[in-house]
Amino acid sequence: MSVERTVELEGHIIDSGRMQACFTAVMDLGGSFEVEAFEVGKHETDESYCRLRVTADDDVTLREILHELHQNGAVLEDPPNVTLEPAPADRVVPSGFYSTTNHPTEIRYGDEWIPVEHIEMDCALVVEPHGDADGGPRAYTKVLNAIEAGDLVATDESGIRVNPPERPRGPEGPFGFMQGGISPERPSESTIRQVADELVATAEAGGKIVVVVGPAVIHSGAGEALARLVREGYVDAISAGNGFATHDLERSIYGTSLGMDVDTLEHPRKGHKHHIWTISEIIRVGGIEKAVETGVITEGVMYECVKHDVPFVLAGSIRDDGPLPDTITDAVEAQNAIREQARDADLVLMLATLLHSVAVGNCLPSTTKTVCVDINPATVTQLLDRGSAQAVGMVTDIGTFVPTLADFVLGDRSE
Amino acid sequence: MSVERTVELEGHIIDSGRMQACFTAVMDLGGSFEVEAFEVGKHETDESYCRLRVTADDDVTLREILHELHQNGAVLEDPPNVTLEPAPADRVVPSGFYSTTNHPTEIRYGDEWIPVEHIEMDCALVVEPHGDADGGPRAYTKVLNAIEAGDLVATDESGIRVNPPERPRGPEGPFGFMQGGISPERPSESTIRQVADELVATAEAGGKIVVVVGPAVIHSGAGEALARLVREGYVDAISAGNGFATHDLERSIYGTSLGMDVDTLEHPRKGHKHHIWTISEIIRVGGIEKAVETGVITEGVMYECVKHDVPFVLAGSIRDDGPLPDTITDAVEAQNAIREQARDADLVLMLATLLHSVAVGNCLPSTTKTVCVDINPATVTQLLDRGSAQAVGMVTDIGTFVPTLADFVLGDRSE
Amino acid sequence: MSVERTVELEGHIIDSGRMQACFTAVMDLGGSFEVEAFEVGKHETDESYCRLRVTADDDVTLREILHELHQNGAVLEDPPNVTLEPAPADRVVPSGFYSTTNHPTEIRYGDEWIPVEHIEMDCALVVEPHGDADGGPRAYTKVLNAIEAGDLVATDESGIRVNPPERPRGPEGPFGFMQGGISPERPSESTIRQVADELVATAEAGGKIVVVVGPAVIHSGAGEALARLVREGYVDAISAGNGFATHDLERSIYGTSLGMDVDTLEHPRKGHKHHIWTISEIIRVGGIEKAVETGVITEGVMYECVKHDVPFVLAGSIRDDGPLPDTITDAVEAQNAIREQARDADLVLMLATLLHSVAVGNCLPSTTKTVCVDINPATVTQLLDRGSAQAVGMVTDIGTFVPTLADFVLGDRSE
Amino acid sequence: MSVERTVELEGHIIDSGRMQACFTAVMDLGGSFEVEAFEVGKHETDESYCRLRVTADDDVTLREILHELHQNGAVLEDPPNVTLEPAPADRVVPSGFYSTTNHPTEIRYGDEWIPVEHIEMDCALVVEPHGDADGGPRAYTKVLNAIEAGDLVATDESGIRVNPPERPRGPEGPFGFMQGGISPERPSESTIRQVADELVATAEAGGKIVVVVGPAVIHSGAGEALARLVREGYVDAISAGNGFATHDLERSIYGTSLGMDVDTLEHPRKGHKHHIWTISEIIRVGGIEKAVETGVITEGVMYECVKHDVPFVLAGSIRDDGPLPDTITDAVEAQNAIREQARDADLVLMLATLLHSVAVGNCLPSTTKTVCVDINPATVTQLLDRGSAQAVGMVTDIGTFVPTLADFVLGDRSE
Repeated sequence: MSVERTVELEGHIIDSGRMQACFTAVMDLGGSFEVEAFEVGKHETDESYCRLRVTADDDVTLREILHELHQNGAVLEDPPNVTLEPAPADRVVPSGFYSTTNHPTEIRYGDEWIPVEHIEMDCALVVEPHGDADGGPRAYTKVLNAIEAGDLVATDESGIRVNPPERPRGPEGPFGFMQGGISPERPSESTIRQVADELVATAEAGGKIVVVVGPAVIHSGAGEALARLVREGYVDAISAGNGFATHDLERSIYGTSLGMDVDTLEHPRKGHKHHIWTISEIIRVGGIEKAVETGVITEGVMYECVKHDVPFVLAGSIRDDGPLPDTITDAVEAQNAIREQARDADLVLMLATLLHSVAVGNCLPSTTKTVCVDINPATVTQLLDRGSAQAVGMVTDIGTFVPTLADFVLGDRSE
Repeated sequence: MSVERTVELEGHIIDSGRMQACFTAVMDLGGSFEVEAFEVGKHETDESYCRLRVTADDDVTLREILHELHQNGAVLEDPPNVTLEPAPADRVVPSGFYSTTNHPTEIRYGDEWIPVEHIEMDCALVVEPHGDADGGPRAYTKVLNAIEAGDLVATDESGIRVNPPERPRGPEGPFGFMQGGISPERPSESTIRQVADELVATAEAGGKIVVVVGPAVIHSGAGEALARLVREGYVDAISAGNGFATHDLERSIYGTSLGMDVDTLEHPRKGHKHHIWTISEIIRVGGIEKAVETGVITEGVMYECVKHDVPFVLAGSIRDDGPLPDTITDAVEAQNAIREQARDADLVLMLATLLHSVAVGNCLPSTTKTVCVDINPATVTQLLDRGSAQAVGMVTDIGTFVPTLADFVLGDRSE
Repeated sequence: MSVERTVELEGHIIDSGRMQACFTAVMDLGGSFEVEAFEVGKHETDESYCRLRVTADDDVTLREILHELHQNGAVLEDPPNVTLEPAPADRVVPSGFYSTTNHPTEIRYGDEWIPVEHIEMDCALVVEPHGDADGGPRAYTKVLNAIEAGDLVATDESGIRVNPPERPRGPEGPFGFMQGGISPERPSESTIRQVADELVATAEAGGKIVVVVGPAVIHSGAGEALARLVREGYVDAISAGNGFATHDLERSIYGTSLGMDVDTLEHPRKGHKHHIWTISEIIRVGGIEKAVETGVITEGVMYECVKHDVPFVLAGSIRDDGPLPDTITDAVEAQNAIREQARDADLVLMLATLLHSVAVGNCLPSTTKTVCVDINPATVTQLLDRGSAQAVGMVTDIGTFVPTLADFVLGDRSE
Repeated sequence: MSVERTVELEGHIIDSGRMQACFTAVMDLGGSFEVEAFEVGKHETDESYCRLRVTADDDVTLREILHELHQNGAVLEDPPNVTLEPAPADRVVPSGFYSTTNHPTEIRYGDEWIPVEHIEMDCALVVEPHGDADGGPRAYTKVLNAIEAGDLVATDESGIRVNPPERPRGPEGPFGFMQGGISPERPSESTIRQVADELVATAEAGGKIVVVVGPAVIHSGAGEALARLVREGYVDAISAGNGFATHDLERSIYGTSLGMDVDTLEHPRKGHKHHIWTISEIIRVGGIEKAVETGVITEGVMYECVKHDVPFVLAGSIRDDGPLPDTITDAVEAQNAIREQARDADLVLMLATLLHSVAVGNCLPSTTKTVCVDINPATVTQLLDRGSAQAVGMVTDIGTFVPTLADFVLGDRSE
């Protein structure tokens, strides 16, 4: 009384690990399989092909197995079209809606595979039958809170094809070096040089570089180095919070961060009040741009952003003091601003912030190159776990990382 | 050409360390002092008194020294009244406004010392000349974003008296045991028993217990134990985020947290989609209370909160999925809700969340008893650093802490 | 002008990842391959077979590729006998000696495959042509410092076959749950229950349980729980250091550990001298066994070990005070004692010690079941990285872990 | 029926916190006190004096209180001579022996105060009545395992005076900046510059600089920078283990550390065998010095040590591979070598090793300037907790710390 379906796998399915993943998934879930056809790429550049007949005791198990195979890029031999249902109300998705991965995805609509735009994890997948410029169908992701009544939302997994990223061939490039996990026991300067090379290459290719930063960048004395990178054109957008901006501005006004002089390491008395005074001063003049224009702020990361038209998003949080007038206090609005900023990034640097890095990471497809730097290994691990295929993690001191990076990028250090 | 002022110190000024702090402050800031009078408490219960003439080379230095002495509870021999200035516009404080500490504070108004209500760190201090029930003056704190044009705001430090908490006398009570820092090398069960005793004592005295929780409480399998504490009346308010609630609700619907079965440790396939399905389900029925009423949710922390009228605040964050309809997405609104909840707490348990713990901690006076529990020592250190006088930190596994605590509190474990 | 060799792979080479590893190794090292034959197991229980012709530009590259394939269990189509060379002097291995992995290994000698005894990482491989009971050949590992002049030592990799462990089939058992890394966000009590089940199963099957412990076990108040496990027969050997024993003995004499009372959490004054007094007392009576016999020591882990004939190794370290007379101060001697103890273990619990866990782990074949528990994620990661195929890691508080484990094992806690 | 004694305190007893410590000790231990005399230093340079009559209910309590006061530098009004008893056997101290602190200490012998030589924590205190050059008395510390039968050992605390270090007056110098704990949120480059200044000042003053290093220094790519500091004369002794030396030597032979190329970050296949091959090679030539002489080793830290006659101690551990012939495998012997090396150090740098840093720290008086650097905050905290009065802790990446330090010291970086 068993049930069965046949799926196909194509590509570099052995060295990408996809075939292994499919075999183990069937076994782990209590199904069985027969390999109906297998053509191995004879040479390392050839693709392979595998047709697998999967058998399970019941429909539920089979569906679970197929779900898992689906995640690894297997498709039903004879794929149906995507199933669509209208959303019953604003923010309410149909029951059984398909929730996206962050991998490149296609849907089958009108017997053709259509790419899904703005791929992002944990979203609903919406199809507009006549949404493209030529009146053809268009598919894209929508977060739950953006769903509108009547949106045609994909349900179950039929007619959806996920393309998990393949391991790059050949010797490891800069973004291959995370394989095998993160360790503090890695040559620090050599690693930073590789990140610098990537930054330069991306900038030269006209790519978009988004830098996500936490307040520790300022506390650790790395503000000036980051400001140099902004000034010299290596940063296309800054994603941060109220705390980062406040301490950067505090440094311009008082020369301190969290009340400590970042050069002499002395604590001027009342220094612990500098941040709240800074906020009140920025409120008084009407915001960061005004503060730069009126000469209240004369240096730092925010200063260079204003001067060089580098857009920034300051996303609010419940631990904020103030906040600054530029801070977006509503989380949903802030997410939308981050999404806008991050979506088409080519390289994302996540520097010493878990909260903002997770928020940005949530919006990225798995193909975006990402560099995560933090002194806490748990933070780096958590960020890399989010499934980016091209992610570099480094456990280091942000206070030496950014200056060293800036020196390498700007050619101020040869070795 | 030097300038000088005389200040007075009273109380247990030696064993509280305040006299030491004042002496070193003068020296560190380049001033000098003469002890004009010193009466030491002859017995350990007697208070001491010290009158100090402080000299500095210039007004700026003298003011810095006086600021520091002020922080340690010294007052000018002949204290002036507080200086007040009207706020020029909404959210804009007068220049040089006094920014509060989290210690009990008094202001001198009409030649009398008046206590400041709702003491909280980094706020402005507002006086209403006829604000109390009898038409007398009233002083309280206001966060910057709540300032309204015309509010009478204290500027500089004249006429303000801070009372830093004194070290409790006698052998260490339960809240004395943090002295000397946090260490994972502390007897875990004995420490938890002390926290349990405090919880029971507070509940029996009719005190208010606020529990701040992160999602790890659910992931680590501690949800049921916390639900028991809510059910049995040991929790008066829950302060959490969208993630905590989502995973707690997911556990009721699917038996999983972050997709892992919390009992069998198995990962049902598609488990990683449970949280987003949970959110969509709660949106569909219209919120958590509705979900309990309609039987969608049948167990867990949120369930018990609804059933036993324990209020909860779910504060939004930019890393939230969804969010749930109950989540307050605006950070300023969420802070106000937290403030309302935390202000009059007698005991605060901060369990495995840095973000929400900092937010709650920001609203607490330094006299509130606080217990901070996290597996990451850096989190515990950061929370304790915020200056609470009665804070216990414990580096432990929340997944064994909460069940052990519940067993001790509810009498299910003798040892 | 290229060179080539043909290798064979057999077994569950797809779902174990070995085939993937071989394909990527060839590509990463700049070689190329042709799949001459591939027979996929049609059903999930069938083994697969692959014959691969590997081509490289030069001998050096080819040798590097073959080395890598060898590590993944590939063997040359027509394997030669092992190459042996006599050691020129004591402790001196021949140049180019083969250094072992920790996987089950065979050597080809006299045209037959012979298993290598006492497999352990980073050793030399010695063959005695007439070493076994019947005068036949015998092969075993030797650490460098045990090599004697004239020992026949294997050089290069010819005639050596490594069998990397295969992933267990079917649903995850208790030792499968580490897949995907360690996270503090795992249900703690459920995980401990699984470890307890394994402990009970191993004891019931007559297996050998070795427990590696650090001083934190005592400081955290877990000493009594561990003593119970020893008393009840769930521990066959203890591997520890001078510090662990000292603090366990201190607790019996003074009721303190590192000077803190483990029940009341008070610090008796002079408590910080208890450990050195304990050591001097044990020296005075002539060692731990004497101290138990003479009634100086009346409880604790060491007490139970002496009373129940559970052997212990106390390995010395440069940070030791004293040391106790029972401590083996020479590192090489101590390693030999650990090797003797650990070699035939069936289950190893590593509790809150990096140093001793690494030392024990160094002696274990990759097939030994291992449980690593520490509050520091970096420690757990480092221990699991050492290549055990059946390793469970848990980031938790040892002070709640051991009591909970003992309760589960000894049936004192139902849930 | 109470008992009482009178003690005296002298010096900067208020701002050093000693008076506060004494007051609280009496109260915490359940005694009471009366201040018989108190003369406060009127000016900040004047010393103060306090005579305290302490009362307790019984002798035991009084003795505990006096012990505590003693630790804070209080002395009995009428101090007796030290009590001495001969050691009954080798390694066996008399019962009730006095165990030392690491603070400067004097004993009263023949009614005179004599300084104790080689002060070190947890030692016995031995007096030779005619031990000095002129036949006068001499007092020094001995570790327990060095005690010989007949040694005159101090028992109880009578006639012993401890001088806890006083807080330096005036603005914070470089070694003042640890006050208030360690935080990763400190300006990194400015902090490193201060350490560099101290290194240069010590070298210029002819002081002795001991550098304690772990293998992470090599893995993180900092080996070359440390080698430069050795070559240029800024290191007077190296304290390390077998692992550090092995990886440094591996880097010279293979260009790798733990098998990873420290420049290109590539992993040559078989790289994980480099360390064991390195060890076998050094064994073959007969040790590190021979390896340098014969040209086997041509660069690195050990190379520079041999070339520039900088002595090194390699202390063995149970996790060592090999070990190298230069490694001292016996822990007691190794401790003696470390003691010899560290005792008269003026500045100690502890770089990325807990084990060796603790071992060195154990031998240091509390007055030795110490800099502890590690990426793990728990390691830095643990090292600073050992009671050094002049300790700087820094949580940073050793791989960027050492190169930046070398640049500052050697003038290769201006900023």
